[in-house]
Amino acid sequence: MPTSVIETITPFVEPQSVALIGVSTRTGPGTFNILEELLTYGYKGKIFPVNPKGGSILNITAYTSVAKLPETPDVAVVSTPRTAVPQIVRDCVSKEIKGIIIITQGFTDADDDEGQMLHQEILESIKGTQTRIIGPNTLGVMNNFNRFNTSFIPIDSDCRNLGVICQSGIFMAGSGDFSGGIGIGIDIGNTSDLDSSDILEYMGEDNRIEVINLHLEGLSNGRRFLDVMRKVTASKPVLVLKTGTSEVGARAAGSHSGSLAGEDHVYNAAFQQTGAIRVTDVDQMSDLTETFLTYKSMPGKNIAIVTISGGAGIIAIDAVSNNNLQVAKFSTSTNKSLTEIFPAWMKPGNPTDIWPSGMSKGYHKILKQSMETILSDPGVDAVLLISPAYIRPENDPLNIINLIDQIAEKHPEKPTASWIFGPHRKTYASKLKQKGNIVVYPTANRAMHSLKCLHDYLNPSYPTQKNAIVELGDMQKDLVAGIIESNLMSQTTTLNEQALDIMHAYGIPVIKSGIATSPEQAVEKAQKLGYPIVMKVISHQITHKSDIGAVKLNIKTEEEVHKAWNEITETVSTISGARMLGVLIQQYCTGGTEIILGAKRDPQFGPVLIYGLGGIYTELLKDVSFRIAPITPEEARSMIKETRSYKILTGLRGNTAANIDMIVYSLVRLGQLMSAHPEIVEMDINPLLVDSNGAVALDGRIMLKKM
Amino acid sequence: MPTSVIETITPFVEPQSVALIGVSTRTGPGTFNILEELLTYGYKGKIFPVNPKGGSILNITAYTSVAKLPETPDVAVVSTPRTAVPQIVRDCVSKEIKGIIIITQGFTDADDDEGQMLHQEILESIKGTQTRIIGPNTLGVMNNFNRFNTSFIPIDSDCRNLGVICQSGIFMAGSGDFSGGIGIGIDIGNTSDLDSSDILEYMGEDNRIEVINLHLEGLSNGRRFLDVMRKVTASKPVLVLKTGTSEVGARAAGSHSGSLAGEDHVYNAAFQQTGAIRVTDVDQMSDLTETFLTYKSMPGKNIAIVTISGGAGIIAIDAVSNNNLQVAKFSTSTNKSLTEIFPAWMKPGNPTDIWPSGMSKGYHKILKQSMETILSDPGVDAVLLISPAYIRPENDPLNIINLIDQIAEKHPEKPTASWIFGPHRKTYASKLKQKGNIVVYPTANRAMHSLKCLHDYLNPSYPTQKNAIVELGDMQKDLVAGIIESNLMSQTTTLNEQALDIMHAYGIPVIKSGIATSPEQAVEKAQKLGYPIVMKVISHQITHKSDIGAVKLNIKTEEEVHKAWNEITETVSTISGARMLGVLIQQYCTGGTEIILGAKRDPQFGPVLIYGLGGIYTELLKDVSFRIAPITPEEARSMIKETRSYKILTGLRGNTAANIDMIVYSLVRLGQLMSAHPEIVEMDINPLLVDSNGAVALDGRIMLKKM
Repeated sequence: MPTSVIETITPFVEPQSVALIGVSTRTGPGTFNILEELLTYGYKGKIFPVNPKGGSILNITAYTSVAKLPETPDVAVVSTPRTAVPQIVRDCVSKEIKGIIIITQGFTDADDDEGQMLHQEILESIKGTQTRIIGPNTLGVMNNFNRFNTSFIPIDSDCRNLGVICQSGIFMAGSGDFSGGIGIGIDIGNTSDLDSSDILEYMGEDNRIEVINLHLEGLSNGRRFLDVMRKVTASKPVLVLKTGTSEVGARAAGSHSGSLAGEDHVYNAAFQQTGAIRVTDVDQMSDLTETFLTYKSMPGKNIAIVTISGGAGIIAIDAVSNNNLQVAKFSTSTNKSLTEIFPAWMKPGNPTDIWPSGMSKGYHKILKQSMETILSDPGVDAVLLISPAYIRPENDPLNIINLIDQIAEKHPEKPTASWIFGPHRKTYASKLKQKGNIVVYPTANRAMHSLKCLHDYLNPSYPTQKNAIVELGDMQKDLVAGIIESNLMSQTTTLNEQALDIMHAYGIPVIKSGIATSPEQAVEKAQKLGYPIVMKVISHQITHKSDIGAVKLNIKTEEEVHKAWNEITETVSTISGARMLGVLIQQYCTGGTEIILGAKRDPQFGPVLIYGLGGIYTELLKDVSFRIAPITPEEARSMIKETRSYKILTGLRGNTAANIDMIVYSLVRLGQLMSAHPEIVEMDINPLLVDSNGAVALDGRIMLKKM
Repeated sequence: MPTSVIETITPFVEPQSVALIGVSTRTGPGTFNILEELLTYGYKGKIFPVNPKGGSILNITAYTSVAKLPETPDVAVVSTPRTAVPQIVRDCVSKEIKGIIIITQGFTDADDDEGQMLHQEILESIKGTQTRIIGPNTLGVMNNFNRFNTSFIPIDSDCRNLGVICQSGIFMAGSGDFSGGIGIGIDIGNTSDLDSSDILEYMGEDNRIEVINLHLEGLSNGRRFLDVMRKVTASKPVLVLKTGTSEVGARAAGSHSGSLAGEDHVYNAAFQQTGAIRVTDVDQMSDLTETFLTYKSMPGKNIAIVTISGGAGIIAIDAVSNNNLQVAKFSTSTNKSLTEIFPAWMKPGNPTDIWPSGMSKGYHKILKQSMETILSDPGVDAVLLISPAYIRPENDPLNIINLIDQIAEKHPEKPTASWIFGPHRKTYASKLKQKGNIVVYPTANRAMHSLKCLHDYLNPSYPTQKNAIVELGDMQKDLVAGIIESNLMSQTTTLNEQALDIMHAYGIPVIKSGIATSPEQAVEKAQKLGYPIVMKVISHQITHKSDIGAVKLNIKTEEEVHKAWNEITETVSTISGARMLGVLIQQYCTGGTEIILGAKRDPQFGPVLIYGLGGIYTELLKDVSFRIAPITPEEARSMIKETRSYKILTGLRGNTAANIDMIVYSLVRLGQLMSAHPEIVEMDINPLLVDSNGAVALDGRIMLKKM
């Protein structure tokens, strides 16, 4: 059996020989003949067309069946009608072909039952064999390094160190638009067998690939995806376009690729935690692909702007600031050098408007002097050069292509990004792209967004998942397992009072409490805890205790305990079918800020943690953050900080700051709890009361998986 | 004197003759010779070069001075060194030239005092004359309809019904990028004399112009801008790129064009209220320009998606939903027609994936049938067609340019927008652009954002300012003027108790109150208002009354009034220099939600209203909205609705809904108050307590202009 992803994927990407099964005898424009496309593309390996009629296609002998092939090819490409596919897969397995690419549509992407059944049949056929499948419903594989390509649509693409993984062929055939030229592209289609994670892992290990584009509709194994993504982003950037983000979109994804689309915020958390860079659209994917293929270093966030226009300089400053970068402050010596070349009426500074000086002293000379001075300033980490493309480069007295390329080449440690505008922008852009030292962006905003992503990715603290997740020692896993088991045995799936015990067992600070089954016992417990106390009814039938008056706050004396007990008993007696099991006696806490910590189990990614400020902030303003568990303390802290309401915890209007360390501590432990006990499907700590001294969970609920 | 904007601007845009003052004798590439560019551009009017050396330039006789010109040209273009400009302006005034375009840099855009002085000198020279100026620091004017152009940079632009107004020449010279072809472009440079509003008003009246692009760095007369913009957007869309949005950017704008950059949220309110469409970047400006030039109708928000790829269909659904449009639901008859042409395994629906059927039955035939069926469905208001540009159109079996253009032309009432992708996108896009019925967008998101803006603009309720602003009759303007005057006479600029009187005079509901100067009087007032009451010290020296215990809440009896009086007196006595003028006696209100209404006077736009929920929402979450006063009730309501916290007022968690009508009523009246009394520079109503019955202002403050 193949043991590594390289062994598994190599037959698909580097085949020495390929069988084309179901290839048509019709050729020429509009016939979308795979054999013709493969020949045009320039594939040098052996090709075996398979067609029941035999004969020859484009002068290449066709075989009437897989069984009759003269040798076992590395890969088979299937484009027959769907009903023929299962038998062909079985034939390929018999022939011990290692890779099958199924182009044919109409399996899990179809709306009928037959498609689902055919899908199952195919999977059954390869079970326990060494044969793996890409597709169905795919354009297949293109490898621009060895000119292997299974697409029936002509693909016109430069060969660059870019890997593309997609669930739709448009990202391969449209690569000129979306990514500007592909090295290796794999359309995984319906992902019946090999999926995004498999291909991602392969691309991570292929040294020719420097940047990866991933188009993702959904996933079937989120945890494996997290592991693979963490590993790959540590060595190369992965740009992810996750589609099906809207509710309607997610439904369409379900029917298109037969893959489950998860909730978008969970995907966001997954990308954030693993260091994947999420893009919002194909134009952003294209910008970032160019950026990461071109620039490999950016020391800091300070941007110098060199411009032909003051107005464009202002637009650039907006762009720098919109993208959380800094407008560089030039050193005294830089300003002095610029003063010498500027007109007397113009103060040097950032942005540097070179036009007035360029007009009187020569544009190329001033541009060169300015750029070299500025790039040598240690306070500058990147330059945005704003320049025009008003006329064709060959006639343009302002043509600076060679000049700026040479300057940029001398300073590989600092990106020279460029916003070039005008009717001939594309021509300038493509000439500079060929030279490979400067990216031309269509707007200043897009340039600065790209540099921001570059800077973030290159930052030593990126991605956060590099922090090891330490197993904490003081968690009573067995105790919790016992509580869960005994509840499941008695068919109880909602835990209230015991939820606090479970949290306590994992070290989450919970309010001190005890259970009383008589008023006398209640007094005893109250004395032990110390007044004031809270009394809450315990009853399986009552969920909203406060609403019916079955919670009594701020009980200060023995007398009040008795009074409260009687009132609770009376209230419960008015609710038909409600049985009172006892009363929970808790310490009474006031002040502080209410926090909600939650967790749920996501079908793709497993345990997901939710953090929010209590009340309106969570319910109404949806001001919450998410991470996939387990998490590190750093991740917990960033969860808290990324909410808008964070400032409330830092001590608004003279209040003392909340003890954020204790929220972090509780979140990390909540993550451990969810990871260790898969029976918990959902839980809330609501509220976790936080003040400057610490935090304490006052209430909580755990939902177990129904058996 | 010219009475209309048409008379003023026409000499600049439609000159029969032009003087070029300071034109160089050097010609050829890189000399940026205005005369040469003008000839190349194809201007047919008379040209009079002016150069002290005389002679001829490019075979055209040059005159040695303005005085010696053989006739008075319609417009003079000045590109001498800056020190020569004031005298030339005086010469032009003497010659009675109506329009001067000053190209020269180094006036308010310069960093030295001389630039400012030269600017003043120029303005003085035209005062009281019929001569008007565009610039300095400008590329001037281009009119593609008569081929007049003052740019020293070659401009390569198709002639379309687009007007461009800018404060930087890049928007004219770069038009191929930013706007895809200009009809009339005017760079207003430093706006020493004619400004954005003047040119905007002119473009509004020029019938050749259908769409306007406005690049704006700042304004000097915001109120006039509002009036002009309201008028123009009623007949044609105005796309505004406001730059200098960041604090750093705003500073650079100050030094670049000598114009004041206002706070960005006030500009936002100005654009929103006047119906200007704000764009965030030049690529959005380009998208919307194409959109408004191409589509003139869109009945509703329901989008049909016709796609060659299921994966692209999902991306399109995300785009529809991101942009607040709807995925159209097809009628039964549409679905029936589609079923007939689809493969059996595929259910028809939206998105409509035409690939499987197109492959078996002919792509062009299926595309035509689908598009015509879908465009005829009354539940469809626009189509997004997703199609590839994988190979050159001339070789492409999937070339659908003529076909879809014809279909779109048959349905001018519904936009056929298109997302075409692939390496040959630009070629497809430019061919379809020439035909003029379909815009090709680079991404689905950009297509849907554009259709959303189109739909909003065409909506009968857009723009909101069409609602007449009615003067309300019951406002006691004279009473308020009296209060303000007496305070200004006594040098008092901060009003506290009297702020409530002023609000009351404009009909804003305020808490009932009275002033007492003795405990006996306090009891009397309290009885008149009815217990419980609130008592607040009145003292010029004490601003934060609550903090020092000089506010007493929930006073219920005569005895408590006396006790509170004594405590307040004692407290005040401990504060050195504090004099107690009396005690404010108010009704005590509890419950309800606290709202903050505010107003300030903006240097560009005058009175600006601010709305927010009290406490943390305004202070911390900055969840506030702005409008420029006066406002209509509809505008007040939209101010309230656009805050995130709006839901709290609608009755969260079983609370009754707040009386939003009363907030609207108060906001409208606050706007009237601010508009009628320019002495008020800032005011707060904080809090306005709102419940289901009504609203009442509990406290407020007014700041008057220091004399």
